Amino acid sequence: MPSSLPPPEVSVNALSERLASRLIEHAGRLRIAVSRTPDGTAIVDAGVETTGGVEAGVLIARLCMGGLGRVAVRSSLDANPLWPSMIEVHTSSPVLACLGSQYAGWSLSATKEQTGGKKFFSLGSGPARALAAKEPLFDELGYRDRHDRGALVMEVDRLPPQVVIDKILRDCALAPDKLTIAVTPTHSVAGTVQVVARVVEVALHKTHVLGVDLNEIVEGSGSAPLPPPAPDAIQAMGRTNDAILYGGRVHLTVKGDAVAQRLAAQLPSSNARDYGRPFADIFKAFNYDFYQIDAALFAPAEVWVSSLESGMTYHGGALNMALLDTQWSAASPVVAGGEKAGP
Amino acid sequence: MPSSLPPPEVSVNALSERLASRLIEHAGRLRIAVSRTPDGTAIVDAGVETTGGVEAGVLIARLCMGGLGRVAVRSSLDANPLWPSMIEVHTSSPVLACLGSQYAGWSLSATKEQTGGKKFFSLGSGPARALAAKEPLFDELGYRDRHDRGALVMEVDRLPPQVVIDKILRDCALAPDKLTIAVTPTHSVAGTVQVVARVVEVALHKTHVLGVDLNEIVEGSGSAPLPPPAPDAIQAMGRTNDAILYGGRVHLTVKGDAVAQRLAAQLPSSNARDYGRPFADIFKAFNYDFYQIDAALFAPAEVWVSSLESGMTYHGGALNMALLDTQWSAASPVVAGGEKAGP
Amino acid sequence: MPSSLPPPEVSVNALSERLASRLIEHAGRLRIAVSRTPDGTAIVDAGVETTGGVEAGVLIARLCMGGLGRVAVRSSLDANPLWPSMIEVHTSSPVLACLGSQYAGWSLSATKEQTGGKKFFSLGSGPARALAAKEPLFDELGYRDRHDRGALVMEVDRLPPQVVIDKILRDCALAPDKLTIAVTPTHSVAGTVQVVARVVEVALHKTHVLGVDLNEIVEGSGSAPLPPPAPDAIQAMGRTNDAILYGGRVHLTVKGDAVAQRLAAQLPSSNARDYGRPFADIFKAFNYDFYQIDAALFAPAEVWVSSLESGMTYHGGALNMALLDTQWSAASPVVAGGEKAGP
Repeated sequence: MPSSLPPPEVSVNALSERLASRLIEHAGRLRIAVSRTPDGTAIVDAGVETTGGVEAGVLIARLCMGGLGRVAVRSSLDANPLWPSMIEVHTSSPVLACLGSQYAGWSLSATKEQTGGKKFFSLGSGPARALAAKEPLFDELGYRDRHDRGALVMEVDRLPPQVVIDKILRDCALAPDKLTIAVTPTHSVAGTVQVVARVVEVALHKTHVLGVDLNEIVEGSGSAPLPPPAPDAIQAMGRTNDAILYGGRVHLTVKGDAVAQRLAAQLPSSNARDYGRPFADIFKAFNYDFYQIDAALFAPAEVWVSSLESGMTYHGGALNMALLDTQWSAASPVVAGGEKAGP
Repeated sequence: MPSSLPPPEVSVNALSERLASRLIEHAGRLRIAVSRTPDGTAIVDAGVETTGGVEAGVLIARLCMGGLGRVAVRSSLDANPLWPSMIEVHTSSPVLACLGSQYAGWSLSATKEQTGGKKFFSLGSGPARALAAKEPLFDELGYRDRHDRGALVMEVDRLPPQVVIDKILRDCALAPDKLTIAVTPTHSVAGTVQVVARVVEVALHKTHVLGVDLNEIVEGSGSAPLPPPAPDAIQAMGRTNDAILYGGRVHLTVKGDAVAQRLAAQLPSSNARDYGRPFADIFKAFNYDFYQIDAALFAPAEVWVSSLESGMTYHGGALNMALLDTQWSAASPVVAGGEKAGP
Repeated sequence: MPSSLPPPEVSVNALSERLASRLIEHAGRLRIAVSRTPDGTAIVDAGVETTGGVEAGVLIARLCMGGLGRVAVRSSLDANPLWPSMIEVHTSSPVLACLGSQYAGWSLSATKEQTGGKKFFSLGSGPARALAAKEPLFDELGYRDRHDRGALVMEVDRLPPQVVIDKILRDCALAPDKLTIAVTPTHSVAGTVQVVARVVEVALHKTHVLGVDLNEIVEGSGSAPLPPPAPDAIQAMGRTNDAILYGGRVHLTVKGDAVAQRLAAQLPSSNARDYGRPFADIFKAFNYDFYQIDAALFAPAEVWVSSLESGMTYHGGALNMALLDTQWSAASPVVAGGEKAGP
């Protein structure tokens, strides 16, 4: 069977160029702000000094997938909606879109001395990762992008210092005015959208952690509920994780039947030791040390895995909407007349 | 927190220009007709002498939102669909898209003497309202559009007389050949689509009537069932209202927690004195006098309101699909063999 | 009431030109291959020597509808999804999109002598059918396309021989380098997508077989579950049929009330003598002779039919997801610890 790994001629930075342009062109109505460094690098503030919004978040999520994914906010249309607004993601290039571009895997930090102020830490995501290819993952993918423009997404609550921008430019071999950096704080609306839109990426990353050959994965789609951001920073981070761990669904298509069976069993977050509590509580219980958390938790709640070899589809895991409702919803308020407004 | 009111540099008429062009270019397959007045104003007939259709209605609904909303017809995918075809609406600019453009607030009338025939009355909606800015609402929005092209939607069953067109051109300061007017009778398919697509606008308008600061509203989405038009004029008008009052759902995101709680309680149509009967019956009971109807009725049936301040989501109201089914559906017909075709 | 038959000025080949171009331009990431015959005809291999994928299948399905339909893969968002991935189709030009373009009605064969190898048989579908207009159906539609480019879809497992390509070019009066042929084997992912996307077309075709005046039909939409292809050729063909016969839903809007009632009763596949078994089993029971199968079986499982005359909507048939689950799903695998991974 032919390879499902990224074909070398596909440029995630070329494919996402028009999405970066649209962010800049429509900044006003997207409630984001675009500034330029003295050298001309475009910095898109989608939630630091701006409010941003869902549409900005969706555009940034599509940019972050290297233009290889469809991302949309959708309304549930059935009798008893799981949640009023859902994020839906589809990609026919799951390995390249999710691991080659969307995964937040590029460690970009600067010391106090370097910034001349506070130290800075961020995990860069998006297509420019594939220009720098600093992560060992790119060797496994056998993919490295070449393009004269690039875009990166940073989930931080302040704009990146020049020393970090310079490192990105150097590693990506980009002219300063050919780089766009979108900054989406976790506690912003756009930040929440772009993290929840990682539902398929999270499944792909766990697939990789489980040691499954990435060449097995051919299609990916998924959904997760979109809450408003939580005002508290730890809660906001916890909430975007919870949306995927307890409300995320993914449908993968793989080649082998054994792989499909294994992933249906092992992918769901319910396999993790720490499953069952809000992520912020778990994080706190481990003294805010990510590396103490069972890595198996970072996964969608429910999966279907179809095999091309057998034509069979396997199902594993289940949603835990009760956990989300307890965290995200308050009781229906009482109307003027004293009666409940809804069931 | 930064303002969520319309940024002045966004032009709803500029954003909807390509939608007006598409209507004109694809008139044939959209089953609509485009004529020109002697001065060159484009009149799009989407249901007077034409059949129009769903796709035309969706394009007109997007035009009517000033290019700031996504509108789509969707199929329910669950086990027991509420209704086979649903309208889904999303906007990250709810105040500008819905109140600054989509709301039917511009009174455009002409006497018998002026028309040389029947008197004419219409409430204009769409982006050209923001060029004329004749309504006090625009002062509250602090928004007025400037653009050399404009588009207006009129929910009437005949083409507008020249005296009305001249008034629009004058108030919008447009050259005659730069104005497009789309005419969508309530009893047409396109007219039904574009009214049902007002589900979020209806929520925004009631929010405004309730005296809530519009600067509180940051995101809006919603859905409502799409019936075929009713053949009778009063029934057709009633039906599009019923789709929203008894089948409409809206998810708003607002800033303050108190506002979110209040809207979840007060927005749903069930708060109105006249709730519970088909709109056409209520209208008839009040001798076809709109102003006798409790204004609180003009609202979606079910709402969720999320607060950025608290991160909480509040739920109010409920669908009343039984009322719609009784009006819109007939019993499953009997097949040749004498058995029921469906459950 | 004006005609709902195709307006002669609409060119399905012109409307689908940019979809053909996109297939060719994005071949790499779509995992398809484009070759050129010595004369310059573009042959798009979407599953013979390539893996293809869902996105390629969706593009080909839209091409096959002459650019007149929306086709998307969607995730179910409700508590108990019918199936993890669904195909959704909408068209406001159902007669032209489905019968004038998408229907696989053009018999294209070549003998062993002509091919110099194996004999070849295919039923061509897509917009180029309307250039050749070799089928009596086009007289009924009163439609014939004129355009200097064309595209055809062939559901076969090898590339077409030159003698067949020459016949297409001759009958369509096209220069060789102006024709694109997309080849989608039934057992490929793209092939499965483009067949399941025929759910509305199947309803239109049965409407025609039932002798209903096509001028009655004004809108069409539908959905069906998207399985992976079955590895076995007969099973693969059976599976795409089953997706529609047991999992397909269609909503038609027609003019007359009597027609709506009749279609709601007679359209569903459950009216057929052979209903209730997997299609591959039925096919085998009739010794692989299509013409022995009750033609009434080729229909969606569940329909809604709305009438513009009465404004009423009629419902008939029902899904039979149990039949599909038995064929397509295997039991949830057992996880390492010995517990079931999901309910």
